[in-house]
Amino acid sequence: MKARKLLMIPGPIEFEPEVLQAMGIPTTSHVAPDFIEIFGKSLELMREVWKSPKGQPFIVAGTGTLAMDMAAANLIEQGDNVLVISSGYFGKRFKDILDRYGANTTLLEAPLGETVPLEIIENELKHKQYKALTITHVDTSTGIIVDPKPIAQLAKKYNTLSILDGVCSVAGEELNQDEWELDIVLTASQKAIGVPPGLALLMVSEKAMQVWENRKTLVSNYYADWSNWLPIMRAYEERRPSYFGTPAVNLIVALETSLKIICKEGIEKRVKRHQSLAKAFRAAIASLNLTILPKTTEIAANTLTAVYYPEGIDGAALSSKMVDSNVIIAGGLLPEIKTTYFRIGHMGSVSPNDLLAVLGALERALSELGQPLEVGKSLQTFQNELLKAH
Amino acid sequence: MKARKLLMIPGPIEFEPEVLQAMGIPTTSHVAPDFIEIFGKSLELMREVWKSPKGQPFIVAGTGTLAMDMAAANLIEQGDNVLVISSGYFGKRFKDILDRYGANTTLLEAPLGETVPLEIIENELKHKQYKALTITHVDTSTGIIVDPKPIAQLAKKYNTLSILDGVCSVAGEELNQDEWELDIVLTASQKAIGVPPGLALLMVSEKAMQVWENRKTLVSNYYADWSNWLPIMRAYEERRPSYFGTPAVNLIVALETSLKIICKEGIEKRVKRHQSLAKAFRAAIASLNLTILPKTTEIAANTLTAVYYPEGIDGAALSSKMVDSNVIIAGGLLPEIKTTYFRIGHMGSVSPNDLLAVLGALERALSELGQPLEVGKSLQTFQNELLKAH
Repeated sequence: MKARKLLMIPGPIEFEPEVLQAMGIPTTSHVAPDFIEIFGKSLELMREVWKSPKGQPFIVAGTGTLAMDMAAANLIEQGDNVLVISSGYFGKRFKDILDRYGANTTLLEAPLGETVPLEIIENELKHKQYKALTITHVDTSTGIIVDPKPIAQLAKKYNTLSILDGVCSVAGEELNQDEWELDIVLTASQKAIGVPPGLALLMVSEKAMQVWENRKTLVSNYYADWSNWLPIMRAYEERRPSYFGTPAVNLIVALETSLKIICKEGIEKRVKRHQSLAKAFRAAIASLNLTILPKTTEIAANTLTAVYYPEGIDGAALSSKMVDSNVIIAGGLLPEIKTTYFRIGHMGSVSPNDLLAVLGALERALSELGQPLEVGKSLQTFQNELLKAH
Repeated sequence: MKARKLLMIPGPIEFEPEVLQAMGIPTTSHVAPDFIEIFGKSLELMREVWKSPKGQPFIVAGTGTLAMDMAAANLIEQGDNVLVISSGYFGKRFKDILDRYGANTTLLEAPLGETVPLEIIENELKHKQYKALTITHVDTSTGIIVDPKPIAQLAKKYNTLSILDGVCSVAGEELNQDEWELDIVLTASQKAIGVPPGLALLMVSEKAMQVWENRKTLVSNYYADWSNWLPIMRAYEERRPSYFGTPAVNLIVALETSLKIICKEGIEKRVKRHQSLAKAFRAAIASLNLTILPKTTEIAANTLTAVYYPEGIDGAALSSKMVDSNVIIAGGLLPEIKTTYFRIGHMGSVSPNDLLAVLGALERALSELGQPLEVGKSLQTFQNELLKAH
């Protein structure tokens, strides 16, 4: 049997061969003309993927948490009111980060498997002036998606900046930053954007850049400070050499490769592919009598699915059997229910073939562990749903 | 003619083919057993390269500036006195970073081309209690090396933490962290450690970890905070899965590959190779009647050489002719004299063949630009010096 395993976790994901080839190119100088062109082009392509022709893109060596950190460190000053809308682990992480910069945070935490109702958000905004609010588009810990559009509209109505953690959504879920008037949309390379881990990516609105420019205090984090990075991003986009910290050359060459693949597929088509695959996958999971973590399919992400283990099934044994079938899945992440569920990533270049492999391995593993099921049912359901979508 | 150009700048450098292959591997999960082993082994191998069996290593996605930022953000609290010993651009950058965390910094700046005398350092330490001092081992902007050992001894004598910016030295210059009692030695992946850019690497002494543990205030930078990373480093070293931010998987696989190559060569032998190649290269440069930026060869780094352009030679024209000869060199970096000198990196896997290519291209370029020189002289000098060294 082929040794290569399918990496079906919610990041890092499966990457295109061209992207991996780009990772392995002989590294060039960070101020070489060909690399300046690649960096500049990447910044331009980000605008296309984010649908933010007016946004200011940032590409910085680091993780998705650094991207969150940059948003918080640059926008927040001591005592600023910030509303954190959370549907999982990463919502709460944003609170931790904001608190570090002296924010006076209010956490609106959805009950497990749910989202925070719009009325509750509006009620908060109505009764207190918030400088900013944060939304986790897709919380990787729960597989829950939040519709950012009406929240961004509320933010606008109440003169509040909106920050979208798009780590598990950008280039996979529907996003229209400028039209929806989201002020920051951030992500990390190893998710739907399709590049190995190591890059923090942000797109910042003109309004948010102005808020940053009008800060009264220095950003209390040197590496995250846009003062250091903005001239560099501008220089690369104008195809001029510039230096602050050495850019992660190979990762950026891989980023340009992936962004070109994304734009060639077309962002609308890519999002539709995520939606139809995720829908078919959820139907297949349901046909096995398994329950997903989001309470309704309307709030289930299209980039990953979080599924409860059936009663009596040991999670470690299931994962191990999946690995024997060359499929790697992720365990739970939400501390309080960590051992009760698993997660399948299906974003980026994901294909029906990949998801059939997952379902096949899952059926065999469950069956071998004594779980009653109709063998082949999930595969059949998946196929039918997919055909219906076309 | 082969299109591939030699990257002879002071980082990113030329990388081993195995390292570049590691960059392009299909990315695995950050908690997969084989990756946990690779991460754990990398931490162990760092201790060998740093000669710091007692140190706490950190591997974090970011640049060398992030490594400096982590040292400053974690050790420094508002009002702490810090002595910055500078012999170029990166010395002064450390002051900027320390200032950001509220340090009360004193900058001891060497005159251009020189180092700060030990007496001046001791005089400062004698008259004021400093919490920490920073040393730039090799300043990439000037090609000047500072001997960290006597400064670390002074630091110990005056009960001061010593922080070594080893970005352009670790795995290229002599270093013995534990024996020399250096508290932090930091570097970045794209230098002598031989991995494409994207990783910040630190080794922290037990004493410095204690100072951090006894902080009175929170670290004012979320991403840099060791509270987030220490449990992760410990987990990987104990071969347990753990998660804070997604590690830069491919870069870390490349790091392990390079650290193994380094340890196989042997760190003593590797440092000697850097020394003898650099010595021969400096002699060759002198034989062309060119002047290096460091005032004496005793303070000239072995990882790069900074050379003044001869009078009447245009820097851009010289670089461009070098590129035509498939050799990429770096321009100046020190703002005040940026256009008057160039820099050649010779660290990591650098071989005599690489440096002959540089000298050959340099001779031809200078000659074509009308600079009088004895053709072949620098190559002959290089060969003779190298033979003498063996």
